[in-house]
Amino acid sequence: MAKDNDSGAASRAKSTSRETKDSATQYAGADAELSLLSGVESPADVKALGPQQLPRLCREVREFLLDTVQRTGGHLGSNLGVVELTVALHRVFDFRRDRLVWDVSHQAYPHKVLTGRKDRFDTLRRTDGLCGFTHPDESPYDLFHTGHAGTSVSLGLGLAMGMAHQENPPHAVSVIGDASLGAGVAFEALNHAGATRQKLLVILNDNEWSISKSVGSLSKYLTKIRGSRLVQRAGQETKSLVQAIPLIGPRVDRALDDVGEVLRHVFVPGHVFEELGVRYVGPVDGHDVEGLVKTLERIRELDGVVMLHVLTEKGKGHPDGPSHPERVHAVKAAPKKASVGKLEPPAPQGAAEPKPVAFTNAFAEALIDAASRDVRVQAITAGMPSGTGLDLYAEQHPSRFHDVGICEQHGVAMAAGMAKAGMRPVCAIYSTFLQRGYDQVFQEVALQDLPVLFALDRAGPVGQDGPTHNGVFDIAYMRTFPNFVLGAPRDATDVKRMLQLLLKVDHPTAMRFPRGNAPLHEDVHASEREEMRVGKAEVLRDGVDGGVCIWAYGSMTETALRVAAAIQASHDTAVAVVDARFVKPLDEELLAKHLRRYKAIVTLEDHQRAGGFGSAVLEAASRAPGASDGRMAQVKLLGIPDRYVDHMTTREEQLASVGLDPAGVERTVRQLQSGQSAAEIR
Amino acid sequence: MAKDNDSGAASRAKSTSRETKDSATQYAGADAELSLLSGVESPADVKALGPQQLPRLCREVREFLLDTVQRTGGHLGSNLGVVELTVALHRVFDFRRDRLVWDVSHQAYPHKVLTGRKDRFDTLRRTDGLCGFTHPDESPYDLFHTGHAGTSVSLGLGLAMGMAHQENPPHAVSVIGDASLGAGVAFEALNHAGATRQKLLVILNDNEWSISKSVGSLSKYLTKIRGSRLVQRAGQETKSLVQAIPLIGPRVDRALDDVGEVLRHVFVPGHVFEELGVRYVGPVDGHDVEGLVKTLERIRELDGVVMLHVLTEKGKGHPDGPSHPERVHAVKAAPKKASVGKLEPPAPQGAAEPKPVAFTNAFAEALIDAASRDVRVQAITAGMPSGTGLDLYAEQHPSRFHDVGICEQHGVAMAAGMAKAGMRPVCAIYSTFLQRGYDQVFQEVALQDLPVLFALDRAGPVGQDGPTHNGVFDIAYMRTFPNFVLGAPRDATDVKRMLQLLLKVDHPTAMRFPRGNAPLHEDVHASEREEMRVGKAEVLRDGVDGGVCIWAYGSMTETALRVAAAIQASHDTAVAVVDARFVKPLDEELLAKHLRRYKAIVTLEDHQRAGGFGSAVLEAASRAPGASDGRMAQVKLLGIPDRYVDHMTTREEQLASVGLDPAGVERTVRQLQSGQSAAEIR
Repeated sequence: MAKDNDSGAASRAKSTSRETKDSATQYAGADAELSLLSGVESPADVKALGPQQLPRLCREVREFLLDTVQRTGGHLGSNLGVVELTVALHRVFDFRRDRLVWDVSHQAYPHKVLTGRKDRFDTLRRTDGLCGFTHPDESPYDLFHTGHAGTSVSLGLGLAMGMAHQENPPHAVSVIGDASLGAGVAFEALNHAGATRQKLLVILNDNEWSISKSVGSLSKYLTKIRGSRLVQRAGQETKSLVQAIPLIGPRVDRALDDVGEVLRHVFVPGHVFEELGVRYVGPVDGHDVEGLVKTLERIRELDGVVMLHVLTEKGKGHPDGPSHPERVHAVKAAPKKASVGKLEPPAPQGAAEPKPVAFTNAFAEALIDAASRDVRVQAITAGMPSGTGLDLYAEQHPSRFHDVGICEQHGVAMAAGMAKAGMRPVCAIYSTFLQRGYDQVFQEVALQDLPVLFALDRAGPVGQDGPTHNGVFDIAYMRTFPNFVLGAPRDATDVKRMLQLLLKVDHPTAMRFPRGNAPLHEDVHASEREEMRVGKAEVLRDGVDGGVCIWAYGSMTETALRVAAAIQASHDTAVAVVDARFVKPLDEELLAKHLRRYKAIVTLEDHQRAGGFGSAVLEAASRAPGASDGRMAQVKLLGIPDRYVDHMTTREEQLASVGLDPAGVERTVRQLQSGQSAAEIR
Repeated sequence: MAKDNDSGAASRAKSTSRETKDSATQYAGADAELSLLSGVESPADVKALGPQQLPRLCREVREFLLDTVQRTGGHLGSNLGVVELTVALHRVFDFRRDRLVWDVSHQAYPHKVLTGRKDRFDTLRRTDGLCGFTHPDESPYDLFHTGHAGTSVSLGLGLAMGMAHQENPPHAVSVIGDASLGAGVAFEALNHAGATRQKLLVILNDNEWSISKSVGSLSKYLTKIRGSRLVQRAGQETKSLVQAIPLIGPRVDRALDDVGEVLRHVFVPGHVFEELGVRYVGPVDGHDVEGLVKTLERIRELDGVVMLHVLTEKGKGHPDGPSHPERVHAVKAAPKKASVGKLEPPAPQGAAEPKPVAFTNAFAEALIDAASRDVRVQAITAGMPSGTGLDLYAEQHPSRFHDVGICEQHGVAMAAGMAKAGMRPVCAIYSTFLQRGYDQVFQEVALQDLPVLFALDRAGPVGQDGPTHNGVFDIAYMRTFPNFVLGAPRDATDVKRMLQLLLKVDHPTAMRFPRGNAPLHEDVHASEREEMRVGKAEVLRDGVDGGVCIWAYGSMTETALRVAAAIQASHDTAVAVVDARFVKPLDEELLAKHLRRYKAIVTLEDHQRAGGFGSAVLEAASRAPGASDGRMAQVKLLGIPDRYVDHMTTREEQLASVGLDPAGVERTVRQLQSGQSAAEIR
């Protein structure tokens, strides 16, 4: 479900986009005034232009995006692909009254440009800046704040139903990409919509590419339509057919029924959609803005559910677009413009090591290694081969690599089938996207007690993508299931150790790790570490009786270590640090000891407090021996409070915004050391 | 996702099935010896029969089911529909090596009969008896324990992939119903499977009915195929076509491609599936066992993904089947045979009232009432109109009733669209089935902070359906989301009050209630109750300082009241009882008072302890003033321990099996009263 800022692709694309920056600047420079766009403050200004001015407006929007997004970073390719479509939509419809839903909404930059936000584009995806997705707080033209794929048809249908009682009901328009259309929820929605008489226009933005290559038969089917002799420019031959529809549509339909479906099949390339009860129009050229306007004007007069199939080119106008669309899907900001914002996470303190490694890459390397030694290992991604590092794995083990497309539900259930056949499937899925396969995690994996391993990348806040992508619910939604083993490695060494360990466990397992670089600990070499065992925590720093002990989970262990080091450096009482390693099963034996030894235990996680790691510690504490005698340590939960954390330039800023940076944690620890009660500390 | 024991339909069907019992017995009596079936202990015995004996075996299996299931209760209609298919499958394949996956698996009774379990059929869905679904613990012929719809294709594909490296790979066979095929995950799987070369047979068991009428355009499409001139008996005309496939298939395919798709369209009714890359065979008569055997023998030799479209009749052989399939979907046990097992939950103590009302009906009445007074109210069900009581609502408010089929994902997202358009949608979905729409609950509803109300029926253990259907995770999976208001009414009066209250809340809300009858409290009339307010608990019984207080959630409040009454009746120290009403927001103010007043607080819920209501209480306690001074009450969590609760004859037995019956709770409370610590009590 993953039209996402794919950092893997982005980092590979970095040098490319740097190289192309100059040519893009030249491109912009050729018509640098942007004289039409500068006058567009709202869609009304688009409507006021002469029809012949639209191509120029599109050109200016494209230049604007090439110029700004390569400076700020963000989704570039998909936005370059929908410039003409966006202009045409705002030209034809009135989205103060009509309703526009962008699927995923990473392709809404041109929409933002046209709806009064172009002056803020240098803040894109920055702290307090423009969101990389649609967001109702930004504009009345943004209806939903989304980021997961496939739901726009359902949302559009719901809007249409909710407006159906109105006099002359407004039009609901959903724009969905071809890869998102493969998500099951989109099929469910089309299947239902087609059986209704609602006024809904579904625009299939077919660019043949999701983040990586589109997957599955639907993709092949769309390719076939693309290749048929009916693919024509919207402004030209097909328009006569399109224009005819409102006039004779139903009667032609009936006539075709009489002659038999054969003719319909010949005339209507999208007959699969027609079978779903959706009137299919297309395919049309998505870069012919005048043709799009005429087509949309006709469609606007139609009732019922219509699908307009628009062929677009991802990265249109970008020198690399046509040949390497994956390179321009998402780009990082051009390094030379780094003064615009703090884009790279700060280097860890004391990390003078030359090569920090991303958690993602550590995982990919570990998986490649594991698969080399165990033929049962199978890797599954849901449309995110590079984001999860599986592109590296796929080069080594192509026959045991499976990209199911944006279909987490199917991917998880398929993994269960594989496990039942004796394999050791590893589902590499972002924490936030696994939510889409939640019921399959339950029924197909957990209830069956099958050895499927979930590698949850992007756990915790993710920075620029914000709350749609923050992976801050997975502990809560998974630890409630029996049979699961849930762990989190604190660094790259433990990524490898935990993967090896979990692959030996005959139960469902998951390991979560964040976006960004893993800390390097030269002081704790892998060989010197305690053997990793399921359900066993590791004490990293000893404390003093009656003092404070931090129980940290996963990557937050690094923060705990820094806090303890800082407190020690100021010659205050030693703070103990435990890497809990597993939230399920939790090391209740060690916890019980610590509850009696220390006066306060601080739990530290980059996950919601509600139902998370700290909550599990409290549950264990409630059944720890001595829980009733009043001599137990108080437990202070540090995690994300009960709200959504907005996008910010970095994950570190997000953590700091909720007191989870080293300074915030140190403050809390010192307050507890000084005798304040947990309840008094906010 | 809900081919489930629909108690609504079942109760309406009760008198019918009672009436038909006699005729069914006569039917069985006509050939009462079941002489063939008595010799069938395993599929090998099916293979040993002569081909001409198969129709008789089918007749005997059908008689056996009519006889036993009407006594025991259970899914009847769907099983009567697949008798011939099941016999043919076990005749043709060898499922000691080949792999058979039943979607939902409520239709696996004939499969159980043929795989050595017929002697245990009088224990069906009883405590320690046969499971109503496939279950690996019962038989090596049962691969998965499922109950939610649509995942069999993914499971089958995973099995095929996991076996592909074997010499002469076994065949994976998935049997999926037409309603399950509408679930998005099934589309995802077909779309992926069609693009692979795996050896997978998908059998589309098309009986035109899920629990209620199938929904959506796919259903219309299947109906069209059914009505086409190509629908023939498998044993007759179509077999020549089918037989030709293995010989000339690929070449014909190419030839057809050359001539154009027109011919293919004419010859292949299932061209939509063909477009998905799936070789379509059918439709064939699902009650012609000899024809099915021949067809399957041919298909067995095919490589790649094949869909066999089988037309069956739900309730085949049942006098009511053809005309009223919904009546025979699931039947309750015939009352006169009640000695077989304890089928009805015991009447609540002291409940001499004449008319107990089911929680489901209380909800339906409240919703009908609310919709009469507020035109914004819209009701949504995902294929369970009668199970959720919405069939009653639909009679009153047909234009504001929406059945989206087995598509929770779409239903939830559509509700969000409606809410955005100013409506007040109510999604009536079982707790366990909402898992399928989890990501939409997050992104489309919670993150947008939209006023969608979820009515989670069948919360807590559900009795005979067992762990696939127990609704024991919803508190954990929802309370971690910001913005949500989560409540649970304790009885029918509060169902109505809570619904009215939540419909006024401008945020996402949910209320959960269990299967079965609500308790009646004539002692606490609605008018005398405290006004219900979001986040406010209600003290139902006062306690004594330093004593024990039970904080109960939802329907478990009744248990708490019984326990307190029993302890009072024995002249022991009074036990306080609080109906928490809301787990989010929790009444932290009252809790803080109670933590200082009582020595122990017992939390009581019919949900997993991990992440549930008690866990939320612990979180609140950890931030309550005074948490550090050792004078706070200990908190003892009573809920479902970290394991799956098997199916049992009644929900009450399931609760008792984990110490959540009144006796178990009383035992815990008395231990706490006597000074034992929470940790000592298991």
